[in-house]
Amino acid sequence: MINRQWILKRRPVGEIRPGDLALVETQVPEPGAGQFLARTVYLSLDPTNRIWMSDMEQYMPPVQLGEVMRGGTLSVVEESRNPAFQKGDIISGIAGWQEYAVLDGGQKLPPGVPLTASMSVLGMTGATAYFGLLDIGQPKPGETVVVSAAAGAVGSIAGQIAKLKGCRAVGIAGSDEKCRHVVERLGFDACINYRREDVAAALKRECPNGIDIDFENVGGEIFEAVLANINLKARIVLCGLISGYNDAEAPRGPANFANVLMKRARIEGFIILDYFPRLAEFYGAMGQWVAEGRIKYDVHVAKGIENALSALNLLFTGGNTGKLLLQVSEEP
Amino acid sequence: MINRQWILKRRPVGEIRPGDLALVETQVPEPGAGQFLARTVYLSLDPTNRIWMSDMEQYMPPVQLGEVMRGGTLSVVEESRNPAFQKGDIISGIAGWQEYAVLDGGQKLPPGVPLTASMSVLGMTGATAYFGLLDIGQPKPGETVVVSAAAGAVGSIAGQIAKLKGCRAVGIAGSDEKCRHVVERLGFDACINYRREDVAAALKRECPNGIDIDFENVGGEIFEAVLANINLKARIVLCGLISGYNDAEAPRGPANFANVLMKRARIEGFIILDYFPRLAEFYGAMGQWVAEGRIKYDVHVAKGIENALSALNLLFTGGNTGKLLLQVSEEP
Repeated sequence: MINRQWILKRRPVGEIRPGDLALVETQVPEPGAGQFLARTVYLSLDPTNRIWMSDMEQYMPPVQLGEVMRGGTLSVVEESRNPAFQKGDIISGIAGWQEYAVLDGGQKLPPGVPLTASMSVLGMTGATAYFGLLDIGQPKPGETVVVSAAAGAVGSIAGQIAKLKGCRAVGIAGSDEKCRHVVERLGFDACINYRREDVAAALKRECPNGIDIDFENVGGEIFEAVLANINLKARIVLCGLISGYNDAEAPRGPANFANVLMKRARIEGFIILDYFPRLAEFYGAMGQWVAEGRIKYDVHVAKGIENALSALNLLFTGGNTGKLLLQVSEEP
Repeated sequence: MINRQWILKRRPVGEIRPGDLALVETQVPEPGAGQFLARTVYLSLDPTNRIWMSDMEQYMPPVQLGEVMRGGTLSVVEESRNPAFQKGDIISGIAGWQEYAVLDGGQKLPPGVPLTASMSVLGMTGATAYFGLLDIGQPKPGETVVVSAAAGAVGSIAGQIAKLKGCRAVGIAGSDEKCRHVVERLGFDACINYRREDVAAALKRECPNGIDIDFENVGGEIFEAVLANINLKARIVLCGLISGYNDAEAPRGPANFANVLMKRARIEGFIILDYFPRLAEFYGAMGQWVAEGRIKYDVHVAKGIENALSALNLLFTGGNTGKLLLQVSEEP
C-alpha cells in the first residue's frame, strides 16, 4: 500500500518554491510491537509550518532536510499492536504531512466532538487564543482589544473571547468580505480592511478610547499602526508575525518601537506549548462556550495530500477564513 | 537681580542646533504669598530632556515653545513666604533650566544626604535602576543580566543591584576606560566596548548561559545584539532608547523582533513616575546599600547654567561616566 508524504528537500528562502519540498511515494510501514498504524484524516496547516522549514531562531528544532514535513494531525487507528489503542480510535498528534504514519502514542479524542472542532476551536488554535488573550492580555470589561488576522483561526476566537469578557473587539482583516464575516457572524464591534484603509487612521476611528490589548498575529506595518494607538499600560499579546515569515531577510522591526517605552506597555511572546499543563482548564471553558453557541468557529477545508503546499499558501495570501485544514482522507 | 534661563524656542530636528534653545536674562521674580524663592544648586541632565523638547509621543507633555526648559533640580530656599519652607532648606523638584525659580512646594531633602547622592543614586536615576531591575526584571540568583549604557547614571546602579541579587552582570559601554570602571570599581563581571567589538559575538562569549534579563537603555543595534542572545522567558526592562532620541526620523525597530516571540520573552516599558507611590521602599533599601558601601555611585559635574546644552550633549557622545549634573551655583 502506498503512502504519500512531503519531504523537506531544501530550506525555502523567501516564499516556498517548487523543489523546496517534494511529494514522494513510499510503502505504508508495518507497526511494530507497541505501535499502531494511523491514517491521517486532517492535517493542520498553520503559519508556524513556514517557520519550521527555516533554520531561523525558533521555539522547537526546525524540520531536518530529508525528513517528512512536521504538522499537527487527526488520525484514525487502522491497525494496532498497542493495547491502549484500538482500531477506529481517533488520535490527535503530530504525524506530519503524510497519508499514513506508524505511531506509538497520541491523545485520544473524546467521543462526541466534531473532528473539525477538535482541529480548531477545541484544538491548538483555540487554546492559543484562550491563553494568549486571558493569561497574557488580562482583559478587563470595557477595555478595547484589537485583533489582527481577525478572520483567521486564532484571531477569530480571540476576538470572540474578548467580547465574552466585556471588551470592545476591533478586528483587522484583508477583505471587505472577511470584515463583514468578523462583525456579522463573529460579533466583533468593528473590523478594518487593511488593504483598503490606512490602518492607523482607521484604528483611531474604531478605538475612540485607544487600544488596551493588541492580540498580534501579523507584525510589520499593521503592528506599527497598532503601536501608534496604544494606551498607557497596554498589553501586546505576541502570538504571531506572519507578515515576516516569508521574508528572505530579517524584516525591519516596528519604527515606533519607542512607544512601548512611552506608554509603559508590555509585549509578551508566547507559544501554546507552554500552556500544555493547563489544557484541561481550556477544554472546560471553551467546550462549554462552543456547546452554548457563544463561540462560533469556521474551518476552511482543502483536500488531498498532494495539495498541501498550495493550501498552505492560502495563509500567506489571505485565502482562508477560519482554521485552515487539509483533509487527507475521509472521516471514519 | 538677574536670572538666567534656557527657553525652548524651536523643536530640535535631529541633534540640537544653535537657536533651538536660547539663554535669556530676566529679573529674579519675587515670591508671592505661599511661595518661596529657590536658588538652583544642581540641575539634573538626563536623556529624557531631549524627549521633552520634541512633540513626539511621550509620557508627559513636551515643553511648550517659549517656556523655560524642564529639568529636575536641587535648590536651596533663599527667601520664603511659605511657613512650611525655611531659608536654607534644600528642595528637590523640577524647577527647570534656570538659576532661580519661585516655587510653592517641593520635597525637602533629609539632613545628612550628600547633595550629589540625592541627585543620583538616591534620586530618580537610582530609583529607576531599582524598580526597573527588581520589579520588572525579577532577577533570580544565577541569572545573567545585561546592562547597556553600563557606565551611565541608571545602568551603573542597575548592574550593581544585579550583583547584590546574585546575578552575573555584563555591561555594555562605549570605551575601554568605561569598561574598566564598570568592572573594577562597580564590580560587574564583564563589560563590552561596543565601539571596538561586535556586540552580539561578545555577548555570546560573556554570557555563556545566555541572557535572562536585559536592562535596556540604548536601543538600536545594541538592542538587536542583545535580542539575538536572549534565553527563553527573558525579561527586557525597557528603560530608555537613547540611540534614537536624536534621530530626525523614527529609528527602525529591531530587525530580530521575532525573537521576542520565539523566546517567549517579555518587553516592558516603564517610567519612574509610575513608582512614586513606592519610593519609600527604594529609599530604605538603597540608603542602606549606599551607607554600607555595597552600592557605589559616580557623578560627572559640569558647571554654569550657560553650559547646560554642551553638558547635555555629553549624554549623546558618551562623554560622561555616572550621573551627569550641572552645578548652577555653590552648595550651601
